[in-house]
Amino acid sequence: MINKLVKKIEANKAPIVVGLDPKLDFIPEHIKQKAFAEKGETLAGAAEAIWQFNKGIIDATHDLIPAVKPQIAMYEQFGVEGVIAFKKTVDYCKEKDLVIIGDIKRGDIGSTSEAYAIGHLGKVQVGSNRIAPFDEDFVTVNPYLGSDGIDPFVKVCKEENKGIFVLVKTSNPSSGEFQDRLIDGKPLYEIVGQKVDEWGSECMGDSYSYVGAVVGATYPEIGKVLREIMPKAYILVPGYGAQGGKGSDLVHYFNKDGLGAIVNSSRGIIAAYKQPGYEKFGEEAYADASRQAVLAMKEDIMNAIVNK
Amino acid sequence: MINKLVKKIEANKAPIVVGLDPKLDFIPEHIKQKAFAEKGETLAGAAEAIWQFNKGIIDATHDLIPAVKPQIAMYEQFGVEGVIAFKKTVDYCKEKDLVIIGDIKRGDIGSTSEAYAIGHLGKVQVGSNRIAPFDEDFVTVNPYLGSDGIDPFVKVCKEENKGIFVLVKTSNPSSGEFQDRLIDGKPLYEIVGQKVDEWGSECMGDSYSYVGAVVGATYPEIGKVLREIMPKAYILVPGYGAQGGKGSDLVHYFNKDGLGAIVNSSRGIIAAYKQPGYEKFGEEAYADASRQAVLAMKEDIMNAIVNK
Repeated sequence: MINKLVKKIEANKAPIVVGLDPKLDFIPEHIKQKAFAEKGETLAGAAEAIWQFNKGIIDATHDLIPAVKPQIAMYEQFGVEGVIAFKKTVDYCKEKDLVIIGDIKRGDIGSTSEAYAIGHLGKVQVGSNRIAPFDEDFVTVNPYLGSDGIDPFVKVCKEENKGIFVLVKTSNPSSGEFQDRLIDGKPLYEIVGQKVDEWGSECMGDSYSYVGAVVGATYPEIGKVLREIMPKAYILVPGYGAQGGKGSDLVHYFNKDGLGAIVNSSRGIIAAYKQPGYEKFGEEAYADASRQAVLAMKEDIMNAIVNK
Repeated sequence: MINKLVKKIEANKAPIVVGLDPKLDFIPEHIKQKAFAEKGETLAGAAEAIWQFNKGIIDATHDLIPAVKPQIAMYEQFGVEGVIAFKKTVDYCKEKDLVIIGDIKRGDIGSTSEAYAIGHLGKVQVGSNRIAPFDEDFVTVNPYLGSDGIDPFVKVCKEENKGIFVLVKTSNPSSGEFQDRLIDGKPLYEIVGQKVDEWGSECMGDSYSYVGAVVGATYPEIGKVLREIMPKAYILVPGYGAQGGKGSDLVHYFNKDGLGAIVNSSRGIIAAYKQPGYEKFGEEAYADASRQAVLAMKEDIMNAIVNK
């Protein structure tokens, strides 16, 4: 799957991923009203609204992008109905041949971690059938529990030719509380980065590993260091746009081959119609605004890489 | 909710929680066959089997215990259908007046963390309705992202009178890879423990905080240290039984008031009929075996506390 991701990034000339993190506040009134008219102001109504909203954005952008990253929290927020909308979104993106990065940030141990890995990336045995439950292509994983938490994911990735992105340095202001603390003179994120390199060495694709890393756009100097520590890890970069990261900040997240990083934008794309400069689209044409925002982001990032 | 948990622990004389972590391998053949006959060897069939299995255990043990801890990974493993079984289990335990600790180990930032908090502990606004999506009483939370990840949970806990258990020192063999690393001479788990004490100080129940901690049974000396660092945090203790922890190892997890810790057992209770000493029950009476195992665990732990 890492090979497919790299190929699609090259074909689209777009090292970007659209974060499908729908909030009801982002969704145009006409979509909400239709969904609520059909299913009531209920969890089912909310789930229908986010699914229809997603569908519009996917239809308008899928030919420009290699991948999407649905953030499962935004679906779990609406309970079982929200999880159904998550699964519908995954399936629809698969139909469009997009690579799906499930932003689930799971992390547990042993057989529990294996259950997450199977549920999201693998196949579960039920009687004589093997069934893929959620069937994302990649997921994000939390490293706090150590190798016991990561190994079961790596095992499933090898079996299914899928991948993970391990949280190394997150984009939020308080990420340093633990991640930046010095251990034998090195920040914790470097120690985790070394483990990512180690975990990834046993499951390599053609040029990059099945085990990638999450490194926030908001800490460019740290991105430069981590790029060197994990040369074979694809870096998933959140924090672009709404959280403050710019294309020019991100050049050091990429390798000399122009590859090695994929930058996420969520709000900046899916709620583009609410952003300055996109007012002309209006609510009805929210998906067209998203397409325009994808083109602008692609240009910003590709320019930065070319001018590196 | 922390007050309710403490009262139920005192009333039952049982500082224990039953981990509802069903695997298909644990489920007696007659339950699986009935479920598969009704719904096929499908995700729906598997979900029906785990729900019926859980129901048997809850019916047989609910009068002896204060709380249950469903591990959501074991449900997500069966996709959307599994999540439906998770919700059914939560609702049924609520009917039985059990305190429900959702073992979800979520952790993200800002509005994403808030979405998890709302989805699992709070209420979501849909049009003019406020709806509780999963409605657990407590959830487990991963601290790797720092205060930005915890604060949204604390906010919802205050609003809804609910609680969290933050992962501090987990029970698995590799938990030390990051958690034991020394920072200014102190292991990371102590630094996280100090933050738990700090986060908890702003939302106190009568004698314990809404913010508890997860500390594995397999590291009793560390449990002793963390007990002192977080005097007001309830400690959720995994790793008893199948993972090797014994009642006598756990005395230092409790405070002088005999409170302050709640010990989880999953496999040792729910798959008791497969354990040495419980063979006489057989598959058909699996739930009676679980009841017997609860009584034995209760005795082991209460003896340890009394003889402290």
